[in-house]
Amino acid sequence: MRQKLLTPGPLTTSAETKKAMLIDFGSRDKEFILINSFIRESLLRMINGENLYECIPLQGSGTFAVESMIGSLVPKQSKILILINGAYGHRIKTICSYLNIDSIEYEVPEDQIHDLVKVEKIIDENQDLTHVFIVYCETTSGILNPIENIANLVSNKNLSLFIDAMSAFGALPLSCKDIEFDAVAASSNKCLEGVPGVGFVLVKKDLINQSRGNSHSLSLDLFDQWQSMEQNKQWRFTPPTHVLAAFKQALKEHYEEGGVEARFKRYSENCKIICNGMKKIGFEQLLPSHLQSPIIITFLQPDSSNFIFEKFYEKLSGKGFLIYPGKLTYSETFRIGCIGHLNSNDMNNAITSIQECLKELDVSLN
Amino acid sequence: MRQKLLTPGPLTTSAETKKAMLIDFGSRDKEFILINSFIRESLLRMINGENLYECIPLQGSGTFAVESMIGSLVPKQSKILILINGAYGHRIKTICSYLNIDSIEYEVPEDQIHDLVKVEKIIDENQDLTHVFIVYCETTSGILNPIENIANLVSNKNLSLFIDAMSAFGALPLSCKDIEFDAVAASSNKCLEGVPGVGFVLVKKDLINQSRGNSHSLSLDLFDQWQSMEQNKQWRFTPPTHVLAAFKQALKEHYEEGGVEARFKRYSENCKIICNGMKKIGFEQLLPSHLQSPIIITFLQPDSSNFIFEKFYEKLSGKGFLIYPGKLTYSETFRIGCIGHLNSNDMNNAITSIQECLKELDVSLN
Repeated sequence: MRQKLLTPGPLTTSAETKKAMLIDFGSRDKEFILINSFIRESLLRMINGENLYECIPLQGSGTFAVESMIGSLVPKQSKILILINGAYGHRIKTICSYLNIDSIEYEVPEDQIHDLVKVEKIIDENQDLTHVFIVYCETTSGILNPIENIANLVSNKNLSLFIDAMSAFGALPLSCKDIEFDAVAASSNKCLEGVPGVGFVLVKKDLINQSRGNSHSLSLDLFDQWQSMEQNKQWRFTPPTHVLAAFKQALKEHYEEGGVEARFKRYSENCKIICNGMKKIGFEQLLPSHLQSPIIITFLQPDSSNFIFEKFYEKLSGKGFLIYPGKLTYSETFRIGCIGHLNSNDMNNAITSIQECLKELDVSLN
Repeated sequence: MRQKLLTPGPLTTSAETKKAMLIDFGSRDKEFILINSFIRESLLRMINGENLYECIPLQGSGTFAVESMIGSLVPKQSKILILINGAYGHRIKTICSYLNIDSIEYEVPEDQIHDLVKVEKIIDENQDLTHVFIVYCETTSGILNPIENIANLVSNKNLSLFIDAMSAFGALPLSCKDIEFDAVAASSNKCLEGVPGVGFVLVKKDLINQSRGNSHSLSLDLFDQWQSMEQNKQWRFTPPTHVLAAFKQALKEHYEEGGVEARFKRYSENCKIICNGMKKIGFEQLLPSHLQSPIIITFLQPDSSNFIFEKFYEKLSGKGFLIYPGKLTYSETFRIGCIGHLNSNDMNNAITSIQECLKELDVSLN
């Protein structure tokens, strides 16, 4: 049996997306070049950035894209404020430390969002700040950070906003017509429902134009990657051709479904079914609904001595669903993703399977 | 029509290898962890390095693996001798320059190998050298560098040898029982006949153990990648799950075919058919046969005014074969690869198609 993945990605993709990988493309052939152009243009359109931004795809996982964004686009003399409420905020901090980039953090617990008044105070007190970094949706908890409010504040203060939108891009609203940001990084294998192996950065044209020579790394040099791609529409170094063929198909399906709005709607419906179903069973959800993203939901592990996560995971896997361990630092939790090529039927089936598992494990939560 | 790829990779893979990508694996699930272990163990066995080396796979193209090898394993105070006879030697130099690693080069033309007496002289004259870097097979020309002689010399001089075996690994001999080397980088999508998206470094256990804190990059930090993988057999950051599933299948087929020796034999046969066939048609091969690797062959573009490479490429593509443009700096050439899931039938068909193309383009070479 092939399990459905209730995870934050890699996730369940459509059959057609996977079938797109049944062809070996020549990486310097016309046919593949068209795939590459389609992907870059589709991603730009998604943020209404056709004329203002450039799309630069990069081999590797999302972290490679985030590191390339920081290493290539942040000049040496910068000072960054990182807003942290989970593991991915911390990862940005780690990258800055590898790169010797000056940074300060404003960290709040993983189930809370940042106080905007305090953000403003920190900015005012640190006149040498040049950038603010924020994670749109922290999959550590599933919390949705208030990107619009943050962006407005950062814009008012004339600072540069960089967004890690890994788990949000394609399902949560992000348009350069609505908010001001300089660069955003995301990947193929989250809400865009492609397979993993490629990330991308969308960056303002004037910013990428100024970034020659910034990068600490040849492989992660976005400027070089961009220049080379502009020259002949090809990749500098061997691209993951099959992953990109799948990505093109996934983007086509994203468009056909109705774009970001439609995907948001489907994921929200998925999320609602899981939240309501789990509540009815007796599980406690970490986040209040106004902070809960329709991406991934954290549940507290119940007190019942019969509930052992590994056993629960195994049993549920046997019934066709893979869930995700928790990532909170202070509490035992587990996570259920609502994204991927899954609909309300899948979510209802997942809830039924969870009920069966608990019964078989003799766990009673009510 | 799907073309067969006569390229240095991405190349033609088997149907079963591609079909392995029709499953969405959970990246933290047991099933995927087994795939990962299988890959790491297979690659170690291929160099007889089970007890002496570690295998660390890394997301991205081969260059990512080479950069991670240099950035993570070369201590800051090192001085490297780079043996260059093509673009990939130059790329190592570029990486060293990004990383501020002290290096000198001994460069010879793209159709020549290095003079061992001169290599020895350079080593003797530069007592502060710590490492020698060599590209096993330079796909720039298809030249085969004499890895065994170089390794013996470097070992005699007590220096550390790093090998870029991108286009050689899996088809050309490389065993730590035969030659002495500290690290080698390669990728999934060359002679191992997987799909592109992952590279790997095989490194001596004592060397990786000493390399904490060396890396210039979080994403490319081999030590961190290794530590994390040793802890729980999982990847630090999202792995290209489908690419790895295909890689496992490709490695299984590599073993079933008879390993490195059998693959060398098939590619050598492929190479012979192309070389003989092209000679008969009237094309001139760049390299003498003792320098020619059975990986990719460079041919000079003929003088005939009717021969325009783009037209020739298009016509041959229409007949089912994709070839590769040249990469020499001093002469107009093109390249034909002999690697991938292709056999003597495919090569004979390619020669027939090339003959047809020339006839249709009214190119006479004899």
